[in-house]
Amino acid sequence: MITLDQFKQVEMKVGLVTEAVSQEGSEKLIKLTVDLKEEKPRTIFTAVRPFGYTPEYFVNKKFIFVTNLEPKKIMDDYSQGMIVAAGDEKPIFLIPAEEVAIGAQVR
Amino acid sequence: MITLDQFKQVEMKVGLVTEAVSQEGSEKLIKLTVDLKEEKPRTIFTAVRPFGYTPEYFVNKKFIFVTNLEPKKIMDDYSQGMIVAAGDEKPIFLIPAEEVAIGAQVR
Repeated sequence: MITLDQFKQVEMKVGLVTEAVSQEGSEKLIKLTVDLKEEKPRTIFTAVRPFGYTPEYFVNKKFIFVTNLEPKKIMDDYSQGMIVAAGDEKPIFLIPAEEVAIGAQVR
Repeated sequence: MITLDQFKQVEMKVGLVTEAVSQEGSEKLIKLTVDLKEEKPRTIFTAVRPFGYTPEYFVNKKFIFVTNLEPKKIMDDYSQGMIVAAGDEKPIFLIPAEEVAIGAQVR
């Protein structure tokens, strides 16, 4: 069990994927460029090519990202967040049910 | 900033809303009955009638719920979780982008 305060420590936001490429030197990774309405877009990696996802799947779509995780070194780069998905095998990404502003916070 | 472990302490799951009613005695609350593939369905309240949401909006749809929050007393009942939404004013609910099993965990 957690408290509501513990839940609120997790910052999740709506982000727009503006670019996505397969990461060279990896068979799994896709490198996303994500607009979160911050000063600069973020680089966020997701290891979902083994599940049939292609970079094209992500581009120009809004997904949900955890935005206050410690950056994680991946290859020669850093992942500045994590895309959120559900599912026991193939990850199914979470999307807003209706139009919502980029950068809008999950609560 | 949080660690990945802190994020993983939050349990979020895909739930199917099987019933939804406006809560008597409240102008805001909708009482959801949510199948999370547990022994029993859960009662989860959401205070979104002021934003134009009706009980009918929720029925037979899958949403994302925080499922390990301490139960919260609401009216004479308990909310056994929280539906997740994004947005600065009107809450926009999060849904899976594709078909996914009820009870599937967010990670």
